Amino acid sequence: MAQFDYDLFVIGGGSGGVRAGRLTASMGKKVGIAEEHRYGGTCVIRGCVPKKLLVYASQFPEHFEDAAGYGWTVPEAAFDWRTLLANKDLEIARLEGLYRRGLENAGADLFDCRAELVDRHTIRLVGQDRTVTADKILIATGGRPNPHAALPGHELCISSNEAFYLDDLPDSIVIAGGGYIAVEFANIFHGLGVKTTLVYRGREILGRFDMDLRRQLHDTMEKKGISILCHTIFEKIEKRADGRLDAHLSDGSVVVTDHVMLALGRDPNTEGLGLEAAGVDLGPRGEILVDDYSRTNVDNIYAVGDVTDRVALTPVAIHEAMCFVETAFRDNPTVPDHDCVATAVFSQPEIGTVGLSEDDAAKRYSEVEIYRALFRPMRHTLSGRDEKMLMKLVVDGQSKRVVGAHILGPDAGEMAQLLGIAVKAKLTKADFDRTMAVHPSAAEELVTMYQPSYRLKDGERVG
Amino acid sequence: MAQFDYDLFVIGGGSGGVRAGRLTASMGKKVGIAEEHRYGGTCVIRGCVPKKLLVYASQFPEHFEDAAGYGWTVPEAAFDWRTLLANKDLEIARLEGLYRRGLENAGADLFDCRAELVDRHTIRLVGQDRTVTADKILIATGGRPNPHAALPGHELCISSNEAFYLDDLPDSIVIAGGGYIAVEFANIFHGLGVKTTLVYRGREILGRFDMDLRRQLHDTMEKKGISILCHTIFEKIEKRADGRLDAHLSDGSVVVTDHVMLALGRDPNTEGLGLEAAGVDLGPRGEILVDDYSRTNVDNIYAVGDVTDRVALTPVAIHEAMCFVETAFRDNPTVPDHDCVATAVFSQPEIGTVGLSEDDAAKRYSEVEIYRALFRPMRHTLSGRDEKMLMKLVVDGQSKRVVGAHILGPDAGEMAQLLGIAVKAKLTKADFDRTMAVHPSAAEELVTMYQPSYRLKDGERVG
Repeated sequence: MAQFDYDLFVIGGGSGGVRAGRLTASMGKKVGIAEEHRYGGTCVIRGCVPKKLLVYASQFPEHFEDAAGYGWTVPEAAFDWRTLLANKDLEIARLEGLYRRGLENAGADLFDCRAELVDRHTIRLVGQDRTVTADKILIATGGRPNPHAALPGHELCISSNEAFYLDDLPDSIVIAGGGYIAVEFANIFHGLGVKTTLVYRGREILGRFDMDLRRQLHDTMEKKGISILCHTIFEKIEKRADGRLDAHLSDGSVVVTDHVMLALGRDPNTEGLGLEAAGVDLGPRGEILVDDYSRTNVDNIYAVGDVTDRVALTPVAIHEAMCFVETAFRDNPTVPDHDCVATAVFSQPEIGTVGLSEDDAAKRYSEVEIYRALFRPMRHTLSGRDEKMLMKLVVDGQSKRVVGAHILGPDAGEMAQLLGIAVKAKLTKADFDRTMAVHPSAAEELVTMYQPSYRLKDGERVG
Repeated sequence: MAQFDYDLFVIGGGSGGVRAGRLTASMGKKVGIAEEHRYGGTCVIRGCVPKKLLVYASQFPEHFEDAAGYGWTVPEAAFDWRTLLANKDLEIARLEGLYRRGLENAGADLFDCRAELVDRHTIRLVGQDRTVTADKILIATGGRPNPHAALPGHELCISSNEAFYLDDLPDSIVIAGGGYIAVEFANIFHGLGVKTTLVYRGREILGRFDMDLRRQLHDTMEKKGISILCHTIFEKIEKRADGRLDAHLSDGSVVVTDHVMLALGRDPNTEGLGLEAAGVDLGPRGEILVDDYSRTNVDNIYAVGDVTDRVALTPVAIHEAMCFVETAFRDNPTVPDHDCVATAVFSQPEIGTVGLSEDDAAKRYSEVEIYRALFRPMRHTLSGRDEKMLMKLVVDGQSKRVVGAHILGPDAGEMAQLLGIAVKAKLTKADFDRTMAVHPSAAEELVTMYQPSYRLKDGERVG
């Protein structure tokens, strides 16, 4: 390998790139990695981690309210946005340090700069006036919010990137989008006391999730006081004389707001990377096209994570990175497994889900059994909060396999993680029934639903 | 069956008795059920349910403290014990009503009185001056706290029964015992601001659980401010002139306290039931002896739940009741399955566990792999609370089956419920590893521990 400076050069220091770089370096390979912004990528710097910290912050007002039914009198609490952001930034800096040290301790060379391909083996370190060469190259540059450039006034809007760094907590915000980012931020801002409006072009928020969860979450969010406008889009955004914004909607109405946040999907980061010079093919959305082994059409160049636009989740990028290392450096070609990925939406209440929705199962299986429970979580018997928990198992009527599990309510994400083991292992409803309940818990509902709530036959509900 | 007044008579209206009575009545059988106190039994009236409500109440002060790191300034909150108890009692009354109505709607006859056996088919309804007869009889009278009659001054002490109905929240309490009831109440009282001391004769609290969990919980409780004295017993309890109590301990010290609570195990409720008259055999602890099908030595008399002193948990009693109905009324003899019961301790932090502890696995398997993670839950990165979460998988080194899973930390009970499905179904470590992580969650640790933390060979740690 003395032919090249590096055995592996990684472009992008997010979850996928860092894992691949660290693992490969720890095998004794020579590894370089370049990150132009901060190590940790979307997840650590401006995604999962800070998002969940903001979720925690936004849940406290409900804790304070819920305490009354338990005998507590809580005087009005005050909130300081800048304290939250400062503490969040400290935590992010700590995590970034862990990522950096993990790479350094494994022996990788870190470059704090942008990197571009010059050819299939040569990388220019932008601003450092030099190039390096590598036998294999991994592109893990992630994605970024779609700016919706076609919207008049889009330049007045913020994305989730900016939402994490607003100087002040606004009095009001309008969020465009119906995906998990839009929904999570709507709950965060509302929880912190911001008048919040969610505008979504589709018929119901959170497409691709089970419709039961979507409706129940929608209802619960509205009950909390979040305004949700479906079948609606922005026509234009205009700055007002008072500094606020007018969001003109397709129904002819105008919402006056401090901020408009666009959460309309994310685009792969593939511009200005020299991909054309290296001969790497892109797909129609600008994503890097890869084969089952995360290999591009150029056989020494691979790509993992959001830049490939497969399943844009941190654990998936990490998994793809680990498979890449097996394939490229351990002589053990390994195909990432994208089937049956459990996932959470940190809405309030939370969603946790794995496997097929009822509708998707109805398309795939001629007979489907639905087990469904809608109940008030125990905590809310005394809090008096009018909020229901939904649990649903989707079972193939022939094999009796549990092919989907869907939860809306407290700790749904934790539950989905562990249900994921059972669903991935193709366990049956009988395996669930055989399991003794843990009492009192919410999850015990999932092992004590002995009779189907209803059945589907060839996609039709048959009672 | 016209030979008898009832096809089934149930003595005891707790979890097991009510389930058996309701199911059997809903089959069209003639069912009577007698409960001398309140329907719902230990679980609903003076156990699981009110306990968990008190746990919720006692957690709020930590929520208030944790809020600071998230930017919230919370003025000092006030707590009113009587409000909590009144609201708790309303909820219990609601649940009791559900239990009663469930029985009534199924067509059972409810008797609000004590019942005693006169012979193997005859039941005296005490105070109603009459007897009824039944083909089959189910005894489900549960248990009660052991009063520790050998302790001088035991009559000055309370048990968990009274703890749910104290007129005022005490300033201080000393709790004797190291089981889950003692530990849960220690955390409840401490959380509500009571100076709390736990006195336990054994070497470590929570015998039979994984030692890692026990030590970590002990440390965490002490860090919170709970005083834990192991290897210590009470010598005597004396009333002081000021109305408080002196608890004399075996180490020679005296603790002055408002209340002493004894949580030293529970005894089966088998006195005064006419069991001798009916010829039903008891075991050495006063428990009703039953065969695999919950049948006593008298072949038309069965017993389920705590009175049989098998596994004293609500879901187990319910399961035994359902198996009893299959056996006795559906011509489908069914043995209750007591293997691999997931369970929770609602300590603070919570415990959730299923399967074998490390020590038990080391006795059963020649090779054991331990996967262990000790980490700060994400919520506490900003709260600053110095509290760790522990997760541990115990794997049979040969079959690679996950034979035990142990969690200490937030939502551990919910997690144990769902891990229970996987462990009960004998899934392997590979099944866990194959499952994609849900990020950011705590439970993702359980599917991302790729290398054993250490191994045991013939019971010895081998690194």
